[in-house]
Amino acid sequence: AYSTGVRRVTLIPGHGIGPEITVAVQKIFEAAKVPIEWDEVDVTAVRGPDGKFGIPQKAIDSVNTNKIGLKGPLMTPVGKGYRSLNLALRKEFDLYANVRPCKSLDGIKTLYDDVDVVTIRENTEGEYSGIEHEIVDGVVQSIKLITEEASKRVAEFAFQFATENNRKKVTAVHKANIMRMSDGLFLRCCRDVATKYPDIKFEERYLDTVCLNMVQDPSKFDVLVMPNLYGDIMSDMCSGLVGGLGLTPSGNIGKNGALFESVHGTAPDIAGKDLANPTALLLSAIMMLRHLQLNEHADRVQNACYEVLREGKALTGDLGGTGKCSDYTNAVISKLN
Amino acid sequence: AYSTGVRRVTLIPGHGIGPEITVAVQKIFEAAKVPIEWDEVDVTAVRGPDGKFGIPQKAIDSVNTNKIGLKGPLMTPVGKGYRSLNLALRKEFDLYANVRPCKSLDGIKTLYDDVDVVTIRENTEGEYSGIEHEIVDGVVQSIKLITEEASKRVAEFAFQFATENNRKKVTAVHKANIMRMSDGLFLRCCRDVATKYPDIKFEERYLDTVCLNMVQDPSKFDVLVMPNLYGDIMSDMCSGLVGGLGLTPSGNIGKNGALFESVHGTAPDIAGKDLANPTALLLSAIMMLRHLQLNEHADRVQNACYEVLREGKALTGDLGGTGKCSDYTNAVISKLN
Ligand SMILES: CC(C)[C@H](C(=O)O)[C@@H](O)C(=O)O
Ligand SMILES: CC(C)[C@H](C(=O)O)[C@@H](O)C(=O)O
Repeated sequence: AYSTGVRRVTLIPGHGIGPEITVAVQKIFEAAKVPIEWDEVDVTAVRGPDGKFGIPQKAIDSVNTNKIGLKGPLMTPVGKGYRSLNLALRKEFDLYANVRPCKSLDGIKTLYDDVDVVTIRENTEGEYSGIEHEIVDGVVQSIKLITEEASKRVAEFAFQFATENNRKKVTAVHKANIMRMSDGLFLRCCRDVATKYPDIKFEERYLDTVCLNMVQDPSKFDVLVMPNLYGDIMSDMCSGLVGGLGLTPSGNIGKNGALFESVHGTAPDIAGKDLANPTALLLSAIMMLRHLQLNEHADRVQNACYEVLREGKALTGDLGGTGKCSDYTNAVISKLN
Repeated sequence: AYSTGVRRVTLIPGHGIGPEITVAVQKIFEAAKVPIEWDEVDVTAVRGPDGKFGIPQKAIDSVNTNKIGLKGPLMTPVGKGYRSLNLALRKEFDLYANVRPCKSLDGIKTLYDDVDVVTIRENTEGEYSGIEHEIVDGVVQSIKLITEEASKRVAEFAFQFATENNRKKVTAVHKANIMRMSDGLFLRCCRDVATKYPDIKFEERYLDTVCLNMVQDPSKFDVLVMPNLYGDIMSDMCSGLVGGLGLTPSGNIGKNGALFESVHGTAPDIAGKDLANPTALLLSAIMMLRHLQLNEHADRVQNACYEVLREGKALTGDLGGTGKCSDYTNAVISKLN
C-alpha cells in the first residue's frame, strides 16, 4: 500500500549533536523501510571567491537537484563576514514559508494540555531584510521590507495548508496599528487571500494580544500567519508551551524546494556522547515525508515516536529520562508495526 | 509618619469603563487620605488648526504643569488622520521608559506561581518611529530607528530601577543576530551602562529565546530591558502569565513627567454598568505614589488591594466573581488600616 519509488533527499547532518541525531533518524527510517536515499553534504561555512563566507557549492547543488532536504543544527559562526547559514539557506532556495507545528505530546508534561497550533512565518523579508544604515553617529535605521508578492504567497500558503490539513481557522498576526503601511500591506494580502477560502475562518489579531492570549489559552488558536520576526517569536513561544525546541519540528517551504530542520542548537556540551534527543529532527523528517506524500510512512513512524514518548521509558536527559540517544532510537524502532 | 504636602496630579479618566474605574481609585485614595489633589482633564481627540487630530491643549498644559498624571483607557480612533492618543501622549511628554511589573497575586489563579518580572520598554523610537514609505507599488518599508541617546537613557533607567527596587538582574532582550546594527547599538548601550552597576547581574538574551524560556520558567527573569516593539510584546505576554491586563500596572516615565495608566481596553460592552475591574488602574496609581515617594501610602493601599484579591469575596466578573466595581472599591476601603 506504500508509495513506491525511491526519493533522493539531501541530508545535512550539521554540527555538534547534529550527526548523532541524524544517524538516529536514518536508522529509524531504514527500519521503517522508508523509500529514501540520502545524499549527505556538509554545510560548514566556506570562504567564497569574494572573500565572504557561505554555503559550500556542493550543498547548493545537491538541494537544487533533489529539491528537498533534512538538516540538523548548524553552528552559528561568530565574527565579521559571517551570516547565519540557516538564513543563507532560506534565502538561497527562496524558502518563503516556515511551518512550525506545536502540539502537546502525551507523556510530555507541561503547564498546557491540548496545544495544537501551527505558526506559518514569512521567511524571506520583513525585519530580516538585512538592510541597515548608520545615518549619523549613534543613529541607526534598520529597514523592515514588506512586499505584496511575498505577503500574498505566504498567505496563500497558510490557507492552502489549513485546507489540506483540515484546519478550521487562520489568524493573521500583525501590528498594523503601528506599522500601518507595512503590516497594513501584509494584512490586506491576508484578507484578499481569505476571500478565496470561505470554508476557513479568518481573523486578524495584534501580535501583543496574541502573545497574551496564547499563554492564557492556546486553544483559541489554530493556524497563524505572520511576518518574519513575529513568526520567529511566536514559534519559539508556542514551542515552549509544549516542551521546547527539542520536541517541535520545522519545515521551510519554497516553490522549488523544501528544507526540514530541527531548530534547537548544536548543544556542544553533550555532543558525541550519545545523550542528545533526536525527536525534533525526527518529527521534522516526518513532516518531510508528508511533503513527499509518503503519508503512510509518516503515520507509521510518527505513531512509533509518540508511543515511545507516551511510555516514557527511553526518554533522554533533556526530558528527565536516563535514556541515551541510541536507546530512544531503538525504542522507536521496536514500536514500528 | 506620612509625607506631607498635597500633590496635584492630572487625571485622565478616559473612555468606556475609564470614568468608573477612575472614580474607584479616587474613592480609595480619599479614604486612605492620600495627599493628592486631582486635576481632571479630558483627552478625547480634537482637530487642531492643521486639520489633524490630537490631544486637547488643556490636557497638555495640565500634564506640563503637574508633571504627573494618571490615565484610564482611551478609545482608539479609527480612520485617516488619527493616531493612537496613547502614543501621542508618550511622544508629547517624551516618556521614554515604560515600566510594567508583572507579579503573581495571591488569590488570582493562573498556570504560573511566583512570577515577578518587570519589563522596561524603550518608549519613543524603534519600530514605533512612524517612518514608512511605499517604494514602488506593493513594496513598503518601515524604518526601525535606534539611537544611542534613547538606548542609553532607557538602559540607565533599567539599572537605576533595579538598584532602587533591590532587583538582582537586568536582561537585555534583542535580535542583534539579525538586526546587527540597530539592536547591536541598543545592546552595546546596555553593556556600557551595565559596567557602572557591578552589583546588578547583566545578561543578554535573544527575544525568541526569552519568549520560550518565559513560558517555561518565568523565575529565570527579573528586570528586562528592550526596544519598543519587543517591550510591547513581552509586557503583554508577562501580563498574561499573572492574569492579564486587568491586573497589571504600567508607568511611562520621562525626564520632565510621568504618566501612569491601565493598559487594558475601554470595554464598551460593560461600560457604565458598575461591572469593571479597577485593579490595573489602582495598581498603576500605587506605582505613581511610589514615584511621588509616598511609599507608606502606597504600601497601605497596596496591602488593602492585595488582601481583597486574596480573600476573593468582592472580585469582579472578569476574575470569576460576582462583585460590582463599587463592591470591590468598598472592600478595598474596608481593608485600609
Ligand atoms: C538562528 C536564527 C538566525 C533564527 C532566526 O532568527 O530566524 C532562529 O531563531 C530560527 O527561528 O530559526
Ligand atoms: C494601543 C497600542 C498603540 C499600544 C502599543 O502598541 O504600544 C499598546 O499595545 C500598549 O502596549 O500600550
